[in-house]
Amino acid sequence: MVFVATAAPIVSGAMAERIRLWPFLAFIVVLTAVIYPVQGAWQWGGGWLAELGFADFAGSTIVHSCGGWAALTGCLILGARNGKYGTKGEIRLMAPSSLPLATLSTFILWLGWFGFNGGSQLALASGADAIAMAMANIYANTCVAAMGGVVVAAVATQLLYRKVDLTMALNGALAGLVAITAGPDTPGLGASILIGGVGAAIVMAGVPLLDKLRIDDVVGAVPVHLFAGIWGTMAVPLTNPGASFATQAIGVLAIGAFVSVASAIVWLVLKTTVGLRVSAEDEEAGLDRVELGMAAYPEFSRDSVAV
Amino acid sequence: MVFVATAAPIVSGAMAERIRLWPFLAFIVVLTAVIYPVQGAWQWGGGWLAELGFADFAGSTIVHSCGGWAALTGCLILGARNGKYGTKGEIRLMAPSSLPLATLSTFILWLGWFGFNGGSQLALASGADAIAMAMANIYANTCVAAMGGVVVAAVATQLLYRKVDLTMALNGALAGLVAITAGPDTPGLGASILIGGVGAAIVMAGVPLLDKLRIDDVVGAVPVHLFAGIWGTMAVPLTNPGASFATQAIGVLAIGAFVSVASAIVWLVLKTTVGLRVSAEDEEAGLDRVELGMAAYPEFSRDSVAV
Amino acid sequence: MVFVATAAPIVSGAMAERIRLWPFLAFIVVLTAVIYPVQGAWQWGGGWLAELGFADFAGSTIVHSCGGWAALTGCLILGARNGKYGTKGEIRLMAPSSLPLATLSTFILWLGWFGFNGGSQLALASGADAIAMAMANIYANTCVAAMGGVVVAAVATQLLYRKVDLTMALNGALAGLVAITAGPDTPGLGASILIGGVGAAIVMAGVPLLDKLRIDDVVGAVPVHLFAGIWGTMAVPLTNPGASFATQAIGVLAIGAFVSVASAIVWLVLKTTVGLRVSAEDEEAGLDRVELGMAAYPEFSRDSVAV
Repeated sequence: MVFVATAAPIVSGAMAERIRLWPFLAFIVVLTAVIYPVQGAWQWGGGWLAELGFADFAGSTIVHSCGGWAALTGCLILGARNGKYGTKGEIRLMAPSSLPLATLSTFILWLGWFGFNGGSQLALASGADAIAMAMANIYANTCVAAMGGVVVAAVATQLLYRKVDLTMALNGALAGLVAITAGPDTPGLGASILIGGVGAAIVMAGVPLLDKLRIDDVVGAVPVHLFAGIWGTMAVPLTNPGASFATQAIGVLAIGAFVSVASAIVWLVLKTTVGLRVSAEDEEAGLDRVELGMAAYPEFSRDSVAV
Repeated sequence: MVFVATAAPIVSGAMAERIRLWPFLAFIVVLTAVIYPVQGAWQWGGGWLAELGFADFAGSTIVHSCGGWAALTGCLILGARNGKYGTKGEIRLMAPSSLPLATLSTFILWLGWFGFNGGSQLALASGADAIAMAMANIYANTCVAAMGGVVVAAVATQLLYRKVDLTMALNGALAGLVAITAGPDTPGLGASILIGGVGAAIVMAGVPLLDKLRIDDVVGAVPVHLFAGIWGTMAVPLTNPGASFATQAIGVLAIGAFVSVASAIVWLVLKTTVGLRVSAEDEEAGLDRVELGMAAYPEFSRDSVAV
Repeated sequence: MVFVATAAPIVSGAMAERIRLWPFLAFIVVLTAVIYPVQGAWQWGGGWLAELGFADFAGSTIVHSCGGWAALTGCLILGARNGKYGTKGEIRLMAPSSLPLATLSTFILWLGWFGFNGGSQLALASGADAIAMAMANIYANTCVAAMGGVVVAAVATQLLYRKVDLTMALNGALAGLVAITAGPDTPGLGASILIGGVGAAIVMAGVPLLDKLRIDDVVGAVPVHLFAGIWGTMAVPLTNPGASFATQAIGVLAIGAFVSVASAIVWLVLKTTVGLRVSAEDEEAGLDRVELGMAAYPEFSRDSVAV
């Protein structure tokens, strides 16, 4: 239940600030009640991917890429925020509302990941001590993969832009976590750092790539969860002799094709029936005021500033 | 110790923004050192309620309604915030300071509830596996009750007000958690969702009811902890054949009478001796500046905005 | 790994708002890869302090004072923020950006401390039940020490300044936690409250003392982690008959001398080669904008306030 609940917010992050609330929730119902369970059962229900020997320990593909494909098709069908991309190819930076809250949220996700990856150990190892040892190994690998992601993103943004980009460093941590999730049990610490670091590098390339393609992913959820998720899944055979590149590729492609097509159908049905997008005026006013009836960040409104 | 510490902040939320800090803390000392332990011992100390067969697994009544009764009597004796209720019956909306922090806090409470309800399993079941199974059942019921509360509050505010009220959705989650706390061990998932959803519906009715009665409960603590706590306690016999409506009603009424009278006495003694309320000027300036000497939300002050 | 990661942010809090990011990170690499492990091995690696009988259960000295000495030498070598201390001895209050986030962070640290102190129990006690009992004892002592710190700081600031100083109350909680960390296993609840309360009193004296010495420690990290850490280490013999004041003093002094000298060398090397400090203009603009390229608190900027 918690795993499927992890796939949903990937979509909300990517499509924020212009999607209508209830059509979004309708999509989430289909995603979590139909799309995710079908492909999840291919592996964790003992289906054909499990029989093939697909390796995805805690779901780099089944959880994260699943949400990522749903978000990518959604962004394509929904369109970018008004003003994000100019007519001459210019890209407008829309600054984050609160770096402290973004940082805190990343640490909360980081902490929760220990439960996510460690809890996926289940009872495969024999005996309580062996389980504890396996979980300790998974915890350590999960943590250093995130650290590898932070370091790569911080150093790379410093070298490229002459400033450390904090949001990229935070996404680097998440990319490291997503990447290690497919196989946190087999690498050593050094390999885990590398797996996380490469995940962050992929995100750093993916964010401007999406912007170039005028795909507006507000928080970078597609690079983090889809691109780094594919990388992590394909990296499993590097440290797990029981996995093969061919089988990993089959799993990535099959799940990608299924989730993309199914998601696109649902998005298109919603778009052509009830509509997906708020009006231009409502988008300008902000969805917190329009859909929730309250200002999420009243401190940015001149009328709230007094005395 | 942590359970009694849970009853105290129910009071602070309801009476915020106009109560003086030290009289409030004096009340909390009496509440946690005398009032709570007396009624808690009736059940968890093997007292007369336990002998009667009163069922309150983790304290919908003993923890939450206890705090709720203390808050309700406090609000009545303290009075509403200046300007909250007009002379012609109009009710002024006093907007929340930060929806992101309110949301985060609700999730923190939600997470902590797993420890609260799950930890109350103690060693009643025989054997480690049986305890783990019982706790897993409690975790799942606790989570879906909160989800039921969110869904009911979101759908109902959309239908009634044509906007989802986020603060009501958050209070709906808390109402679901409070309601399931009296018996998270006996229902199935479906019944737990219903118990939580009804709790949220009660809160949705309770918030405007209090406003109509001109009882100013800043965060909705009385509907959430008292009203939903009574509902959850009375709902236990629906799924627990060992509990009876009559005994549940006796427990609710006895604890309600005792906590209300005891709290009222303490509030009145404090009011007539040291006084409970800050001055009108201090209330207007904000208790953060007056009592703590610092601005909690300096971004709302014009003098802090520069460059 | 997590213990050494705890020593690092002590330094960042003290030296915030004027230190350059990369020289700071270079120091952290030396601190965590060389300085911390050397002195940690004296005790937890079975070194000479362990052989002497030094008692520091979860690191009041080895973790907290280590970070505190590094922060103190850093503040001395870096210098105060511009405008903090006037030419005639006046001290400018630089108000915190967000009391809600400061409070939330303190509670997160408080919660994490249960893992920090409880997890240090390891398997010293024999049998699962004995370990659980020992950990429960440690949890309770850790919690009440923090509470003692809050109460002392709140009462004392009320008496001294006629207002409760919230940031001092929060630092009081942290001081209590740091103080109990050297020996959370041997005191009773009353002694733990006292140990935490004295820790808070020391912080209340230490903050103005540092200001008088014109040592600018932004968050009070040196009083909290160093001063309260020394107190907690020296207090162990009061409740642990296996510890002696002489040995505790030897440990405090040896680690203090080693960490201070080693840190000072690294800070001075960095200062004379790459430089430690941002320019005066960058300090005025804020390091979030200058080093991270984004405004951490855009709500304080007039240009972000619109509509």
